[in-house]
Amino acid sequence: MHIIHRHTDYEALIQGTVEIIPTDQKDGLQARLQADRPLIIKFGADPTAPDLHLGHAVVLSKLRQFQDAGHTVVFLIGDFTARIGDPSGKSKTRPPLSPTEITENSATYLAQVGKILDIKQCVIRYNSEWLGSLSSSEWVQLCGQVTVARIIEREDFAQRLAQHTPIGFHELLYPLMQGYDSVALHADVELGGTDQTFNLLMGRFLQEQYGQRPQIVMTLPLLEGLNGHHKMSKSLGNIIGLTEPAHQAFGKLMSISDDLMWHYYTVLLWKSREEINIFQQAITDRTMHPMELKKQMAHAIIAKFWGTGKAEAAQHTFEQLFQKHDYSHAQIIPLPATMHNPVWIVDLLKYLAIVTTSSEARRLIEGGGVSIDEVKITDPTTKITLQSGMLIKAGKHSFYRIA
Amino acid sequence: MHIIHRHTDYEALIQGTVEIIPTDQKDGLQARLQADRPLIIKFGADPTAPDLHLGHAVVLSKLRQFQDAGHTVVFLIGDFTARIGDPSGKSKTRPPLSPTEITENSATYLAQVGKILDIKQCVIRYNSEWLGSLSSSEWVQLCGQVTVARIIEREDFAQRLAQHTPIGFHELLYPLMQGYDSVALHADVELGGTDQTFNLLMGRFLQEQYGQRPQIVMTLPLLEGLNGHHKMSKSLGNIIGLTEPAHQAFGKLMSISDDLMWHYYTVLLWKSREEINIFQQAITDRTMHPMELKKQMAHAIIAKFWGTGKAEAAQHTFEQLFQKHDYSHAQIIPLPATMHNPVWIVDLLKYLAIVTTSSEARRLIEGGGVSIDEVKITDPTTKITLQSGMLIKAGKHSFYRIA
Repeated sequence: MHIIHRHTDYEALIQGTVEIIPTDQKDGLQARLQADRPLIIKFGADPTAPDLHLGHAVVLSKLRQFQDAGHTVVFLIGDFTARIGDPSGKSKTRPPLSPTEITENSATYLAQVGKILDIKQCVIRYNSEWLGSLSSSEWVQLCGQVTVARIIEREDFAQRLAQHTPIGFHELLYPLMQGYDSVALHADVELGGTDQTFNLLMGRFLQEQYGQRPQIVMTLPLLEGLNGHHKMSKSLGNIIGLTEPAHQAFGKLMSISDDLMWHYYTVLLWKSREEINIFQQAITDRTMHPMELKKQMAHAIIAKFWGTGKAEAAQHTFEQLFQKHDYSHAQIIPLPATMHNPVWIVDLLKYLAIVTTSSEARRLIEGGGVSIDEVKITDPTTKITLQSGMLIKAGKHSFYRIA
Repeated sequence: MHIIHRHTDYEALIQGTVEIIPTDQKDGLQARLQADRPLIIKFGADPTAPDLHLGHAVVLSKLRQFQDAGHTVVFLIGDFTARIGDPSGKSKTRPPLSPTEITENSATYLAQVGKILDIKQCVIRYNSEWLGSLSSSEWVQLCGQVTVARIIEREDFAQRLAQHTPIGFHELLYPLMQGYDSVALHADVELGGTDQTFNLLMGRFLQEQYGQRPQIVMTLPLLEGLNGHHKMSKSLGNIIGLTEPAHQAFGKLMSISDDLMWHYYTVLLWKSREEINIFQQAITDRTMHPMELKKQMAHAIIAKFWGTGKAEAAQHTFEQLFQKHDYSHAQIIPLPATMHNPVWIVDLLKYLAIVTTSSEARRLIEGGGVSIDEVKITDPTTKITLQSGMLIKAGKHSFYRIA
């Protein structure tokens, strides 16, 4: 039997969210939580991209909260569109996936999700169950529920139209399909990143058109990648994967800027503005060192998503590795994901912005100014295999440690 | 066995057309006519509007030419969309039709078409045969063949978007469905009015996408209604129905303006610019009277679409009716389709622009200045049941004869 924790949950459930629609007392989340049944919490997953990272963890940990409060998380795998791919054949990033590929990707996805969600308590559904068998009339009917203007006002469509970048007509069907998933599931709540707001609202709208009580839309912030300024995304090489070893993730977290640290505290650890203010004041008052606060952050994030034991061990490993030889003042940099590995020593120096030209790099190397893990490199044609913990010294004052 | 008349047909087949796409030697109509098989000529009909008029006759008589040359006219009844109607429920003009209504409308439609086409030689198809059974993947695939920009550039869509008039998203599917009909039929040629050019070209485009030789598109001019300036259309009340008695149609044709007469000679009788020039010169030279030329036109049109025998009889009836009492100089007006019948005598005088206000009409009636079929009307509350041949006199100089 599910035990549903009603009153106490509401405040916790809205922590860290950006928007909850609607906000009113009558139809809002608080009212729905009073229902004497587990709520259906929808989360849509795309089986074409099964590599999960900390960016996904933002929504997943909110789902876990709903699970812990006794509600039913429906993990929806969008296999219908994955099987079709891009029917115009123009997009190389959307090849049609075979049923085997979809099964494999879904298994990978779920294994990773299982680090945060209680998979045994999840309901796993595939949208081909209903989208695959819609009749022609039902397709026309589904399309008839919305106006053209409503669909093409979606930000990315509007931009591409304005820039005359082609949009396949079938692409306009995708938000409708995603919305129809909510109808098929009778979803009470749908969660997603803020970039999903349009699609989540479409679900709400279509449920109403099909005579259902419209779902509550809950959006969560997008996590910035390790170098800041961009959404965490595999293609940008700025991620911490959920399956990475905890000590490596710990190291990467230690490499982020102080500014980004506040963002991670907010988005991943749901610290309030007030709590952040207290931390910042402590730094100003010099009662706390930013490095110490960053360690606390890394520890808390690893504890939340990898487990408390892993967090302890990771912090220990990190401290061992980075404090031997007293290079603790080395600047910690992430493993450059966008470079070939092994990397040409000249390119590495340019990447680290120690030099600006190749000839400058050669002079520095030939002059004996560069060492890797305490070994001097004097041949400017050397290739280096980068790895976590590696120490790079250049000139008298530049020390870098790869996270 | 079909006998296909090849060489001699081309010049006749392009008579009266506005555009033929493509125009080139290799893939054009002339080349296709060389094929050793009957061509498949597609004509789409909408079973929601089964009342045919002379406007439809323009395309139908061109189809008949193809039939007479040994080709196969496929008469395509768009029952799939008719059954769906307007799924958003917002349009009162597109209620979903039941299978019975569609069968009845189609029968009515075909009976009327049979006045021009040889129905026994037509292939009758219903697009629900293929559209009704498209799978979900096939729908997405069909949509994936075109870009959004290509569809919303259709003139009426572009206008409505610019004016912020709502367009149901399903409406964008209609040109795709119509185009897919050409794929399903393997059409060689598709005919339509110039307002159908976009849809006809979509058929051409989709056939190419689906690996077929694209159909030839042939457009014919839109026929202006009896009062000119507007396309002949039932809702505008400016039509000559194909099922109207020939003498009534003859009368209506006699009521059109001289300017419109040239248009009818061109569009319905496929007279060339040179032939029209000769007629116009004859009028200038006073070797021919416009009324005489209009009678020849009416005779030729009735002969073409109702038959030669009917044309003779209609002209005879017309002359009998309109020359008795020597009111042959009466202005011939069509039965006002937009008025209630019986009509209030005051409204009638205003409609004929004999008076501009009701009180002016009353004064004229009470003063004994108005008669209907030689009977003086002095009571301004009188209601008149209008009918063909009725003579209306108002004042000393206004004589009107209802066509």
